[in-house]
Amino acid sequence: MSDIKEFESVERILKKLPPEDYENVRRVLYGKATREIDVSEKAKHLSEKYAIELVSCGFDSKEEELRSPRIVRVGLFQHKIPIPTWSPMKEMREAMYQMARDVLEVAYRGGVNVFCFQEAWNMPFAFCTREKHPWCEYAEDAQHGPTTRFLSELASRYNMVIISPILERDSVHGNTIWNTAVVIDNHGDYLGKHRKNHIPRVGDFNESTYYLEGNTGHPVFETQFGKIAVNICYGRHHPLNWLAFGINGAEIVFNPSATVGELSEPLWGIEARNAAIANSYFTCAINRVGTEEFKNEFTSGNGLPAHRDFGHFYGSSYVAAPDGSRSPGLSRTKNGLLIAEFDLNLCRQVADVWGFQMTQRLDMYAELLDKATTHDFKPQVVTKTTEL
Amino acid sequence: MSDIKEFESVERILKKLPPEDYENVRRVLYGKATREIDVSEKAKHLSEKYAIELVSCGFDSKEEELRSPRIVRVGLFQHKIPIPTWSPMKEMREAMYQMARDVLEVAYRGGVNVFCFQEAWNMPFAFCTREKHPWCEYAEDAQHGPTTRFLSELASRYNMVIISPILERDSVHGNTIWNTAVVIDNHGDYLGKHRKNHIPRVGDFNESTYYLEGNTGHPVFETQFGKIAVNICYGRHHPLNWLAFGINGAEIVFNPSATVGELSEPLWGIEARNAAIANSYFTCAINRVGTEEFKNEFTSGNGLPAHRDFGHFYGSSYVAAPDGSRSPGLSRTKNGLLIAEFDLNLCRQVADVWGFQMTQRLDMYAELLDKATTHDFKPQVVTKTTEL
Repeated sequence: MSDIKEFESVERILKKLPPEDYENVRRVLYGKATREIDVSEKAKHLSEKYAIELVSCGFDSKEEELRSPRIVRVGLFQHKIPIPTWSPMKEMREAMYQMARDVLEVAYRGGVNVFCFQEAWNMPFAFCTREKHPWCEYAEDAQHGPTTRFLSELASRYNMVIISPILERDSVHGNTIWNTAVVIDNHGDYLGKHRKNHIPRVGDFNESTYYLEGNTGHPVFETQFGKIAVNICYGRHHPLNWLAFGINGAEIVFNPSATVGELSEPLWGIEARNAAIANSYFTCAINRVGTEEFKNEFTSGNGLPAHRDFGHFYGSSYVAAPDGSRSPGLSRTKNGLLIAEFDLNLCRQVADVWGFQMTQRLDMYAELLDKATTHDFKPQVVTKTTEL
Repeated sequence: MSDIKEFESVERILKKLPPEDYENVRRVLYGKATREIDVSEKAKHLSEKYAIELVSCGFDSKEEELRSPRIVRVGLFQHKIPIPTWSPMKEMREAMYQMARDVLEVAYRGGVNVFCFQEAWNMPFAFCTREKHPWCEYAEDAQHGPTTRFLSELASRYNMVIISPILERDSVHGNTIWNTAVVIDNHGDYLGKHRKNHIPRVGDFNESTYYLEGNTGHPVFETQFGKIAVNICYGRHHPLNWLAFGINGAEIVFNPSATVGELSEPLWGIEARNAAIANSYFTCAINRVGTEEFKNEFTSGNGLPAHRDFGHFYGSSYVAAPDGSRSPGLSRTKNGLLIAEFDLNLCRQVADVWGFQMTQRLDMYAELLDKATTHDFKPQVVTKTTEL
């Protein structure tokens, strides 16, 4: 395991700077400071017991005269696989469920209203292997599968909306497999699902071997704690995907992910945050953490020898606010729960200040995209002979 | 003037960290390291003479077997107004032109092929005042006005494409005023213009008092040094605007800007960089620098007393590459020229790795935007009674 050489977090390093320097850098890099919130001694105690790093913060907003505040606490959980990938699948599932029981107890004690796991949270991220056996066995029915049933009970007990990204098997439509986020409401009822819209073909992300592009549009789920949506992993690279959730009225968009390495890490802090700014909503980016090793070796299409691990999932989960400020990140190396508190009213407050929706000119772009998708599309190019 | 309390740059502060910490933070925050490039002793000497901070760097790319490299050097110039805003307009213009002569000489000696000024570069950023007199006098014809004529001669002399963002007056269409970027090719010929697509209504950016949304689409200018486009200032907040230049084939998109204050600074490093990533092209973000004071006081719609300055333009101009890496920023306080060298081939190289264009599903979004712009649009919302 190569985790040992990984440094813990950018934030922890920045704190080594002299206080004035730190504050200048923090303000430019992270925006308006978040405040401390109370997450209860019980939550802190439990997080230590379960070895889950607990980070919390609150975003400020204005009081309004005509609307009451709509304060929400979200919980973002990043975790390693608890036992080796080659463990019996029933043991793996049970170990994952035990981890879920633990963290949901911490989240409950920390006052979390909406909780989200990482992508394909209840299994190893095995798509690098391109092996169908045994990994496809993890796929289960979104509504009636064991994981949704398991979490429904906890959602109801803790009065918590839970987003559970899993590998889905659709037995009604040819037993097909999908990368799907299930939304369970705070009464434990299945509210619906969203299937990953954009599927990667980069590095070891061989997911297109297993499932195709999602066909569930861009649903926004109306819950007691706000209008929420889920942009799964690679969808964060697509500004149109984020925009679509905004158009449908999302106030919080979760981005459960699994991403590794030098290629994506410099993008990680940029994309979900840009989406929060551009669409005047909160974004919650969750990444796996740790290094997963597999039994059989595989190659990576990069000329290097066969190997058995996918690289280091660098964690660093964070929340970004519509005003461009962001929370500290969870660590790059450890299981962690990030609890963030904010007022959903901030979305409209910021939108009113910046006016991005008003100045968006959607009609102009609808026309352009219509043209751009035709086979005889002519890009608008100015050359010396085509004066504008 | 309040500049004195402004710190110089995030990069300079980060360099105070121990080397290993610095490198870890630099990699996560800035991506793959840029390299040093040779900009000639003459350029360095002149930049000192003219008190223009000179920063330079190069981005790496792969050698290809079937295409030759297409190495380009861009020059981004950020500057203060050289004399007070209330100076006679002819003096202001001449002082600006002298500054342009100086910096273009430095850029030429530094090997720059494509040069871009900041937004409305040849005048104070006076739109905060809402005064039509005298500021509208600065508006001039895009093709035949004094600034284009002045720069054409230098573009030809230095074999340099020059992007000149000015206040345009269109005498053919009712003497209307526009916020326009003029593109002059390296033979000194007027290649065309682009009008700012998205106009702000935020803080003291009272630009909608002076001009409306642009009507020139999203032109990409084919030059000897690549396909270039211009996303003017507030357009950087709109991912669709960036996308449209990408759809039309841009390889470099310049973002001449004028932005101040705590509201926008945390967004500055995010937006142009996200655009470079999402669209697999280079972006060049240029901001004004310094504090501009005006003769008459004005209020800012924020409950605070009348004042005479727009706040501090924080400079920090930078270049972002399609792989998510970025250059150091110019300072937050001084006139500066950033010279960046890169191979345009990197755009397609990165697009092939990440596959964002292939996985973009434009047809799905064309359909959504069509619907979203109708008056009876129904957002896709899932409630307890509308199971997905």
